[in-house]
Amino acid sequence: MFEKPEHIGIAVQNLEQANALFAKLLGKAHYKIEAVVSEHVLTSFFQVGETKIELLEGTSEESPIRKFIEKKGQGIHHIAFEVADIEAEMQRLAAEGFVLLNEKPKRGADNKLICFLHPKSTAGVLIELCQEIREA
Amino acid sequence: MFEKPEHIGIAVQNLEQANALFAKLLGKAHYKIEAVVSEHVLTSFFQVGETKIELLEGTSEESPIRKFIEKKGQGIHHIAFEVADIEAEMQRLAAEGFVLLNEKPKRGADNKLICFLHPKSTAGVLIELCQEIREA
Repeated sequence: MFEKPEHIGIAVQNLEQANALFAKLLGKAHYKIEAVVSEHVLTSFFQVGETKIELLEGTSEESPIRKFIEKKGQGIHHIAFEVADIEAEMQRLAAEGFVLLNEKPKRGADNKLICFLHPKSTAGVLIELCQEIREA
Repeated sequence: MFEKPEHIGIAVQNLEQANALFAKLLGKAHYKIEAVVSEHVLTSFFQVGETKIELLEGTSEESPIRKFIEKKGQGIHHIAFEVADIEAEMQRLAAEGFVLLNEKPKRGADNKLICFLHPKSTAGVLIELCQEIREA
């Protein structure tokens, strides 16, 4: 089950400038910056109600965020939904015919296990599933 | 102040097919369909946590949704934030340098007063402000 939109990801060219812009827009500052080296991104987070806005800047040529901006320009990149049990959701969605971009959950920003769905199977929308990592 | 993302708008080619797809994805059906004749769109809504997913199909050649799909393909179209006082927010944002797409709030889907911000002033993100219409 999808609990809520956990965050909305926005691809930006320059994180510093975008942080200033979104602080003016949302009327509050970002509460953290985090690099996800494996994904070649630098991220920042703003809390709005129970959902976060995640700004993403690509940090290398290989970054999917840079490729997205080259193709489509800056803008909304993905929606992440919080799920209680990511492996169960991945199984359910694969059985429904959705295309998962990874076979096993991987580690994302903000202490999450994540999995992306291919936008070709979701009307052009890049969807992320995420589950909070609970320390044993 | 932005209370929460009220909904995330997704541009789709065919609302009926997209309703079936998103029902499988979200694990629940849409709860209503509404035509907004002035905007040339047919919309449907799904509730996920405190936020809605709004699917939008353009209903005429003039529809901004059809133009969006021609240019960028199906996908995420806008983020709408709920505000308590839309006129106060419009004034605040105009003073901060954001470009409003209408001077006065207009009537949108789902019993809302709405105003869009030009994506050129918001890093490519089409932002909608919306305020619930309270009957006197």
